Amino acid sequence: MYLQNAWYVAAWGHELGDRPLARTILGEPLVLCRSADGVVFALEDRCCHRNFPLSKGTRVPEGIQCGYHGLTFDHTGRCIHIPGQKVIPPSAAVRAWPVVEQWRWIWVWMGDPEKADPARIPDLWMNDDPGWAVSEGDLLRVRGHYQLVIDNLMDGSHVTFVHKGTLGTDDVADVPVNTERKGNRVRMVRWILDRPAAPIYASLGGFTSNVDRWQIITSAPPSTVVVDMGSAVAGTGAPQGDRSQGIELRSFNLITPETDQSCFYFYTHVRNFALDSAAVTKRIKDLFRIAFLEDAEVIERVQAGNDRYQGRPLVDAGFDKAPLMTRRVLQRMIRTERANNC
Amino acid sequence: MYLQNAWYVAAWGHELGDRPLARTILGEPLVLCRSADGVVFALEDRCCHRNFPLSKGTRVPEGIQCGYHGLTFDHTGRCIHIPGQKVIPPSAAVRAWPVVEQWRWIWVWMGDPEKADPARIPDLWMNDDPGWAVSEGDLLRVRGHYQLVIDNLMDGSHVTFVHKGTLGTDDVADVPVNTERKGNRVRMVRWILDRPAAPIYASLGGFTSNVDRWQIITSAPPSTVVVDMGSAVAGTGAPQGDRSQGIELRSFNLITPETDQSCFYFYTHVRNFALDSAAVTKRIKDLFRIAFLEDAEVIERVQAGNDRYQGRPLVDAGFDKAPLMTRRVLQRMIRTERANNC
Amino acid sequence: MYLQNAWYVAAWGHELGDRPLARTILGEPLVLCRSADGVVFALEDRCCHRNFPLSKGTRVPEGIQCGYHGLTFDHTGRCIHIPGQKVIPPSAAVRAWPVVEQWRWIWVWMGDPEKADPARIPDLWMNDDPGWAVSEGDLLRVRGHYQLVIDNLMDGSHVTFVHKGTLGTDDVADVPVNTERKGNRVRMVRWILDRPAAPIYASLGGFTSNVDRWQIITSAPPSTVVVDMGSAVAGTGAPQGDRSQGIELRSFNLITPETDQSCFYFYTHVRNFALDSAAVTKRIKDLFRIAFLEDAEVIERVQAGNDRYQGRPLVDAGFDKAPLMTRRVLQRMIRTERANNC
Repeated sequence: MYLQNAWYVAAWGHELGDRPLARTILGEPLVLCRSADGVVFALEDRCCHRNFPLSKGTRVPEGIQCGYHGLTFDHTGRCIHIPGQKVIPPSAAVRAWPVVEQWRWIWVWMGDPEKADPARIPDLWMNDDPGWAVSEGDLLRVRGHYQLVIDNLMDGSHVTFVHKGTLGTDDVADVPVNTERKGNRVRMVRWILDRPAAPIYASLGGFTSNVDRWQIITSAPPSTVVVDMGSAVAGTGAPQGDRSQGIELRSFNLITPETDQSCFYFYTHVRNFALDSAAVTKRIKDLFRIAFLEDAEVIERVQAGNDRYQGRPLVDAGFDKAPLMTRRVLQRMIRTERANNC
Repeated sequence: MYLQNAWYVAAWGHELGDRPLARTILGEPLVLCRSADGVVFALEDRCCHRNFPLSKGTRVPEGIQCGYHGLTFDHTGRCIHIPGQKVIPPSAAVRAWPVVEQWRWIWVWMGDPEKADPARIPDLWMNDDPGWAVSEGDLLRVRGHYQLVIDNLMDGSHVTFVHKGTLGTDDVADVPVNTERKGNRVRMVRWILDRPAAPIYASLGGFTSNVDRWQIITSAPPSTVVVDMGSAVAGTGAPQGDRSQGIELRSFNLITPETDQSCFYFYTHVRNFALDSAAVTKRIKDLFRIAFLEDAEVIERVQAGNDRYQGRPLVDAGFDKAPLMTRRVLQRMIRTERANNC
Repeated sequence: MYLQNAWYVAAWGHELGDRPLARTILGEPLVLCRSADGVVFALEDRCCHRNFPLSKGTRVPEGIQCGYHGLTFDHTGRCIHIPGQKVIPPSAAVRAWPVVEQWRWIWVWMGDPEKADPARIPDLWMNDDPGWAVSEGDLLRVRGHYQLVIDNLMDGSHVTFVHKGTLGTDDVADVPVNTERKGNRVRMVRWILDRPAAPIYASLGGFTSNVDRWQIITSAPPSTVVVDMGSAVAGTGAPQGDRSQGIELRSFNLITPETDQSCFYFYTHVRNFALDSAAVTKRIKDLFRIAFLEDAEVIERVQAGNDRYQGRPLVDAGFDKAPLMTRRVLQRMIRTERANNC
């Protein structure tokens, strides 16, 4: 079902203040807590005494204190205090998961802690860099299997039908796409050369002549999808790598399974122009919020359809090439991981 | 559970405008759609591509278009268009059911399409005839097994207790009833001869002397119950068939299973007097709406009781004769149908 | 799961007026009804005809009448009337349970009726005596297994954490406790000698010097917990049994299982001072209502934790001595009862 040895976004950094946060990741109920020194830790959301949820407890200097009888656990999950007694049973402990805070997100390693390597966190440095302005997305909880969100991102063909009034007004779905697999990544590349700027870019970029426009969608397992999009003055070398006379956007989409029927959809949009414009930040945020809510709605209906019609064969279309390629990569990695664990 | 080779009302004709309608019939989620030429068709409510519900799509001249990726299906359920490709896989199809629009209802044949015979639709012509005025009932969705609604209609003994303030004020339940089976129909006949008109008829019929009054309830499998009721001047031959000096009402009750714990209850009342009086139409509609909601409430409580007390034996009463006879007829037909299918 | 041969509180006496009351006890849906002569009877909440809930029927002089077809049952559960027929089938009956109204509660015997002995009802006479004023508790329905409520009452260690703003401000949990088992009862005794009166007693008792203070918690199976608490002028013999120069309170806690995940928590507080003060009655009632709602909340979270983490081993603490002792007594009695029934 899930690739365990991987980093998943559990929360936005700003969600962790001075109170514990409950969140279920890959079917595991976790409690996330920012200790007094600012470091975030993740434990199972249960006190080993009587199963009271630690997320309903209190942060204390030593870690987290259960709200029922006051047992205290440190950031490793070890119980370090039981009121009324000196001796702590060795079994008094709860599970802990490795946590790294990076690019303004809280990442949790859901597999073998020995294998947790921060270098494997996706390189999304633009989400925390002075050269890029961020339009942070809302946290969406989608009542659908996480794979359905990845499918949706890797399939351009739904835009015309699902986003009629928003993204669909400037659809690129009919432009030929080059889909290729590089290692574990699937990449879809579209170029529209020497055409008038699309409305979404015309005013933002101040283009007065034709542009070269690109949309490059890349998936990285388990569940990260990055969209690299933008336009540059026609003929100034963008297809060859020179974007200096253009504007760029990135859409970072980080999907974290909650259960086998729901997931969290963390997303953000970053840009390298109009850096100081609060109006542009808001405009981009509002535009994509509407579109992503439209996607969430259709994904939830597909989940409901899947629940109702389990076992019915599905028919693939030509535009499913990239979603299916992405699925196969991930499924193969999951099977390999399972085989290695046996 | 259900008689499959039969017509069931899926909707009122007026429910089908220019948008698809989702409705589950006999456990099958259907989408009903009125094509541009006015003819209604019924397909399974799923796109064979990714299980998105077709009822959330759009009617198009060629049929119905899925709201996710735009696959289009014609009225036979065959996929006739997939965006971006010319070749449609032969497996790209969804199931379709025969539909007939008659007597202002949409009837769906839920069994072997080869056996669908419009002549087998119950003869309810009075619901669409200039000689009869219609007080159309609301569409009731009852959280109870459809058999419980049939039982309720075939059992007169509950009227005193369930409809205390409405129909019960003029109860005929204590009048001797003649119950007989004719083929697959069960008929209960009551006559009250040479008595003052009941309040429900007195003003409507303008009777100044005694009347002969009748109530004839007939069930026809799988789940149609017709009540023929009225009064005529006493001694003018009503028991022999001459109703010319009287007024008549019919109650048409068409119950369609949704699931094994819920059903749709389509009903209407027609009359052959005061044809132009909107006030009488409304009065009859309001009277029966209240009573049918009272019935729905008790039926839902019986369903809850059945769920809670599965396997507990029940005790039959004398007044259960007609409901039990009706049940046995339907159960025998269902068993025969099943045996024929093996 | 439950001790069957025991009395359980099903309702407050004042809940039974002239209408039937539905309540599920030990997984059995019951209808409680106060007959015209004032005596309460308990039957299964189903009419044996068609499973309609008798609690939705009507009280009649002879017993209770079903609201669907009017079958009437007497207080023994025997059907004594079926409309339209003289002969009542011998099988037309529903189960009845022995009932006693005592100490202002309705007690139901859930086991073998032959063994129902009113003398085994807990002796809570103070709840109905002119020498004691009653602050009646609300009826709480807790979405937690009844054992979790007993645990909570027998464990003083949670008070500091759960009742921070209420009972916790005057906590005795750190005072040494003597826990002992006497037959089937578990008793926890605390004495604080020759100290200033606690705030909760100072104004109520008008103490001007030091007091001897006690808290004695006694559990009696299956699910009754009594708290005997109070203070007396220091050195006047309270530890030896002379409470004449003090004030006393009792907390009666009667927990009745509803299902394996919910229970009813009947409680009351009685006092032998300020008998005529409505203000004191209200103050005690309000104080404990807040605290008990805090307990209900934590218990429901533990239940949710138990559901989620079934099978995970729990770690006991030192302060679990009395709750665990109480559990073992009850479990042994349940096992013995089951063995006797085979």
